[in-house]
Amino acid sequence: MSNAHPSSAPVAPTPAPSDRFALVRADLDRLEARLRDVSDVPYPPLAEVVSQLVRAGGKRLRPAVAFLVNQIYPAPPERSLALAAAVEMLHTATLVHDDVIDEAALRRGFPTLNTVWSPSATIRAGDYMFGRAARYAAATEHPRVIRLFADTLGVIVTGELRQLYHRPVGLPSRQDYLDRIYGKTAALFAVAAEGAAELGRAPEGAVAQLRDYGLNLGMAFQVIDDILDFTATEADLGKPVGGDLREGIVTLPVMLYAEAEPDSPLLRRLWDATREGGSARTAAVDAVVAAVGQSPVIEQARDEARQMVARARAALAGLPDVPARAALDDLAVYSVGRRE
Amino acid sequence: MSNAHPSSAPVAPTPAPSDRFALVRADLDRLEARLRDVSDVPYPPLAEVVSQLVRAGGKRLRPAVAFLVNQIYPAPPERSLALAAAVEMLHTATLVHDDVIDEAALRRGFPTLNTVWSPSATIRAGDYMFGRAARYAAATEHPRVIRLFADTLGVIVTGELRQLYHRPVGLPSRQDYLDRIYGKTAALFAVAAEGAAELGRAPEGAVAQLRDYGLNLGMAFQVIDDILDFTATEADLGKPVGGDLREGIVTLPVMLYAEAEPDSPLLRRLWDATREGGSARTAAVDAVVAAVGQSPVIEQARDEARQMVARARAALAGLPDVPARAALDDLAVYSVGRRE
Repeated sequence: MSNAHPSSAPVAPTPAPSDRFALVRADLDRLEARLRDVSDVPYPPLAEVVSQLVRAGGKRLRPAVAFLVNQIYPAPPERSLALAAAVEMLHTATLVHDDVIDEAALRRGFPTLNTVWSPSATIRAGDYMFGRAARYAAATEHPRVIRLFADTLGVIVTGELRQLYHRPVGLPSRQDYLDRIYGKTAALFAVAAEGAAELGRAPEGAVAQLRDYGLNLGMAFQVIDDILDFTATEADLGKPVGGDLREGIVTLPVMLYAEAEPDSPLLRRLWDATREGGSARTAAVDAVVAAVGQSPVIEQARDEARQMVARARAALAGLPDVPARAALDDLAVYSVGRRE
Repeated sequence: MSNAHPSSAPVAPTPAPSDRFALVRADLDRLEARLRDVSDVPYPPLAEVVSQLVRAGGKRLRPAVAFLVNQIYPAPPERSLALAAAVEMLHTATLVHDDVIDEAALRRGFPTLNTVWSPSATIRAGDYMFGRAARYAAATEHPRVIRLFADTLGVIVTGELRQLYHRPVGLPSRQDYLDRIYGKTAALFAVAAEGAAELGRAPEGAVAQLRDYGLNLGMAFQVIDDILDFTATEADLGKPVGGDLREGIVTLPVMLYAEAEPDSPLLRRLWDATREGGSARTAAVDAVVAAVGQSPVIEQARDEARQMVARARAALAGLPDVPARAALDDLAVYSVGRRE
């Protein structure tokens, strides 16, 4: 595969770190090897599943953040690797349970585990991956990092539970939305950055700044994800477009659309159809997804993500001026411009 | 409630440590307070659920083992408490997912969470409790104990997965059965004893002995549970009798029955009905449960548990001769004589 025409290259299921990750390429390669090593999984079908889920993994952004932080504040390489593996495995484990709960059929373009295994086995496979994440976390041998990590699992799950039980017809408050994307995405970016800073014995102020960086980067990343759910193609997303709204989850683009068009007949039809249930809802969702995707509110939502990115970049101020700091800055800029 | 006629007292849902636990009564009280403190759970419905699941808890045998070990080899009380809480919370978390998977309606005489909450919310509640268990484990601040703990989650889940996928019609091998009860029960008893020994800086040999004690105690405990599934009443069990066989899980009493009665028409009918599926299976299960429950194989199975208890007691040889060691010995004897 040539790098000359990256846009025409086939979509690679395995993560292909771009040049953006040049500084941490070797670290990310070690991470892949670590995550894919399932020689210690005692049950072959489970080993196969863990390995598949890992291979189908995403861009490894959270580990990249952790590794870059450890280029500013070096930590013993084994511990840095353990933190990155813990963060990525926890992320993957929560996705496995997400897919059972949503009865999702596709994730990153691949059939989800619960379409192949039974839901029961998928629940257990997710549990196994929680255990594996916990073991990686334990291998950081840093009590504060391990605690951070356990707390983050609590935050993620609480967010998911709120979302299951608090899905009102109509619009969430801005605070509800921000809480949701914090739990869903930003908390784990924050722990990647903060945990790595702790492992690298960064000064207390720098630990707080890096946490702030990770948190805001994660918030921006999720806002962009929520935008792409309206503007991308199914091929780019690896799953159907408009998925959130279909599940009754209202994200920033719809909230901004409702502010811009308070009397929108499309939205009224959606809320009515949601209250009544039944098949009319699918058509109502499709209409809203199409309208929002072509609306100027998309650019507004992108502006909000840009503000979060600006906060992430500002949080880097005063940290040692090394190439890794510039790479973190670059990663923040990239996150808001990405199209998939 | 008078203590004069304990057998006529109403069944208390809260654990009432017997005199057997006199040595660790104060520790167990602190544990209850710690487990029931959900003031840090940020979402009230979840706090209520965690608190209910904890209150409906069992006999706290695993924590009692850990606390007794720490009376032989003292550890900082906060860390000992954290280990006990971690072990008990991990146990409770796995039960929550068990109940979703088995679609169980009753556990310890109470409606299971998944009959009240949706299965999705129950999966998340279990995940939350894994996170809480991990946080307690982190609070031991002992990397080896934390790693032990994470490994044990892996062992438990692997066992459950094997059981989901390897449920042949007919009899498991003896090794399959022993592997299953190790994952289901003995692994967590082992980590309670071994973890506490590590926290108390016991000599290496004593750590291994105490692990061996916990492991054999746990094995015996599960064999007795498997016997009670045939001999107890639904009122004592807090769930329907014969539940394992109903779910297609063949335990030691049935294995011994099949050895004693290789041509049993009842068993042949059960395997046939299992192969064919359908409603005939329920009657076939009932007939086998009744026959096994009245068979001499029950006493044979109890003998096997007694051998495990003997191994547990032998593992205590040479440890410091303090009252806690006698209490561990007593606990092993009790575990095999219990009727609920």
